Amino acid sequence: MTTTPESFVELLSSRARIGWGGASSARALAKPVFEFGGGYPDPASFPYDGLIDATARMIRAEGAEALTYGDPQGYRALRELVCHKYGLFEGLKVNPENLIIANGSGHALSLAFSAFVDVGDAILSEAPTFSGTLQTIRRHGPEVLDVPVDRDGMLVDVAREQLAKLRRQGRRCKLIYTIVNFQNPSGPTLSLRRRRELIDLADEYDTLILEDDAYGELRFEGEHLPSLYALDGGGRVMRAGTVSKILGAGFRLGWLCAPPAMIPAFQGFLFGGGVNPFASRVATYFLRDNLAPHVALLVNVYRAKRDAMLRGLWEVLDGTDVEISRPEGGFFIWIKLPTGTDPKRLAAGAAEAGVQYTAGTAFYPNGGGERFIRLAYSYESPERCYEGSRLIARAILAAR
Amino acid sequence: MTTTPESFVELLSSRARIGWGGASSARALAKPVFEFGGGYPDPASFPYDGLIDATARMIRAEGAEALTYGDPQGYRALRELVCHKYGLFEGLKVNPENLIIANGSGHALSLAFSAFVDVGDAILSEAPTFSGTLQTIRRHGPEVLDVPVDRDGMLVDVAREQLAKLRRQGRRCKLIYTIVNFQNPSGPTLSLRRRRELIDLADEYDTLILEDDAYGELRFEGEHLPSLYALDGGGRVMRAGTVSKILGAGFRLGWLCAPPAMIPAFQGFLFGGGVNPFASRVATYFLRDNLAPHVALLVNVYRAKRDAMLRGLWEVLDGTDVEISRPEGGFFIWIKLPTGTDPKRLAAGAAEAGVQYTAGTAFYPNGGGERFIRLAYSYESPERCYEGSRLIARAILAAR
Repeated sequence: MTTTPESFVELLSSRARIGWGGASSARALAKPVFEFGGGYPDPASFPYDGLIDATARMIRAEGAEALTYGDPQGYRALRELVCHKYGLFEGLKVNPENLIIANGSGHALSLAFSAFVDVGDAILSEAPTFSGTLQTIRRHGPEVLDVPVDRDGMLVDVAREQLAKLRRQGRRCKLIYTIVNFQNPSGPTLSLRRRRELIDLADEYDTLILEDDAYGELRFEGEHLPSLYALDGGGRVMRAGTVSKILGAGFRLGWLCAPPAMIPAFQGFLFGGGVNPFASRVATYFLRDNLAPHVALLVNVYRAKRDAMLRGLWEVLDGTDVEISRPEGGFFIWIKLPTGTDPKRLAAGAAEAGVQYTAGTAFYPNGGGERFIRLAYSYESPERCYEGSRLIARAILAAR
Repeated sequence: MTTTPESFVELLSSRARIGWGGASSARALAKPVFEFGGGYPDPASFPYDGLIDATARMIRAEGAEALTYGDPQGYRALRELVCHKYGLFEGLKVNPENLIIANGSGHALSLAFSAFVDVGDAILSEAPTFSGTLQTIRRHGPEVLDVPVDRDGMLVDVAREQLAKLRRQGRRCKLIYTIVNFQNPSGPTLSLRRRRELIDLADEYDTLILEDDAYGELRFEGEHLPSLYALDGGGRVMRAGTVSKILGAGFRLGWLCAPPAMIPAFQGFLFGGGVNPFASRVATYFLRDNLAPHVALLVNVYRAKRDAMLRGLWEVLDGTDVEISRPEGGFFIWIKLPTGTDPKRLAAGAAEAGVQYTAGTAFYPNGGGERFIRLAYSYESPERCYEGSRLIARAILAAR
């Protein structure tokens, strides 16, 4: 009566079969000496004492509310705090009714895909785009049409061509996924002109836009541009955000900001009990008193790290035909490797030096990216960003 | 260029369309005087000071680990704690590799449905069953075949008939969903004989079992029976659990216990960053030191509430042909209303008296239950359980 361990495989759902049995694309060093791989927040900046204090104040003030089931749309005071944040940094006015809290920004994005994407549907995405979202997208099974980026962000003209192609096929694009600020991984911020063009395009082709903005407040320089959500007049934009980068990813708190009529479509995929009543309240109690100064501190922290990494890279790679992004904010540097660099030799050399990075191929929906790598300067200290970036730059030189 | 607010509806996914625009089945009193509706834990038993202390100890000990992305399978020390709990209360030995942490038990169940259920698939469920899970099931779109319960739990013979019927249709059951202890809402514990029969049945028909056990530790009397997971020899059982009832639902921490080979199928639907690194650690630090005494305290608390509610109900309803469950644990009493009770008049009378309950119809996958209601004794004090149950008992009498 017993079965082989794998007999359940026949019973898997169609979405669970996507990629089943395949090897993970991520290849992490066992113990990297320099962690430039993932977008991990700076550990030295976490407000440890402030969070202990916020937890104590919160439990005394909120009592049982913090420890039982919560509002299915998310803790209202956290939604009010997000409204406050949007007002403070962008002058954008939204209401708690526009917001639904999720278990981090990745989960928020998955709610949007669950609500609008069936297996086989068509969507548009930047190529390259964030590798984590690509995993979420793949699980939902759509066909992803690539849209390249340049120094002004997504090439809206190519997006138009892709939409026209779908229309000729009698198909409709479900949504356009875009990372508007310090695009992850490639760095550019979508220009104001292109933002307006993209909104018009979504109107023309009657589709939706999923605007991912996990890093917007962490702008080191340059001008803040209005979000697609702010520019949209037609109720077509869903915007994802998170406290992961401005407070801590360990809280797993993100959200979608969307027209209130859409909120039930997302809420239908939130299974059970309201998102994180306890963690929502700790985060809210801390950020309510500390949002502006804490973000100001982080901007200085990450700017110094970016500058240290850029300095290290250019000191070694100047004189080659390397291309290195200089993002105005966020966590990442995107490198187009010098002509003739062998990715496999680079991987071996970086491993030898103990430097973790992410290969460019992880960021492309439909292949490509062999010529690129992404470095995260967010986790290590400025000194170690400098030191480690010189090591990987030497590994790049040695891999030609 | 603007659109009507509802234009996005055309773009919804097939799963998002399930029930779209329908009214919510739950009808809550604005401010019930007696909260007998949902399975809310006792607010007086929450360990407020213990959690403040656990948070401080945890942050000092764990540092950045608590505030950044976590293990995709869930915080390992929490998985170890669950193993310890299974050993302590049941003598069941599992490993952290058998466990995946989710955002509460409801989310854990949804991972199982996501992994194994496509729209249109067939599954079996007790009828009645937990209304919250029914919402999760409906979102995944399977056909649910009813299996009634009696005093020994699910009628396994009827389950066999349903499986045979599917086989004659050339279809296969994806999974059998069952609540084994103090079945929610109807109260029985699945007998040992039926547990063995159910395992054999799943083997015979080559299907899976999803064993939901949110309340197992909160047993007031009677003997603990081995779980389906423990009895299974074939790797067919997924078992869901939670800290919601033994610590607090506000942490949103649940899990699936399953064969390690299955874990990746669930993990594929966990979008981003590891579940609740912060809340996982607070809960673990508290429970590691307090599990046995805290559960012992809760057993006494809930037993007293059950007894108070049963006393109030029988004092008023004795002499009618009412049937009232006497669960050996958990949060709920299930009432078969006296002959001739009018559900609408009962609803009006209970609202008048300020007593919130859940109508039996909420618990049936395919209709039925008009003759039943569920009362939760978990939230109110014993005194108020007694008082409120007399009020609704009188409303029952008045509704005949």
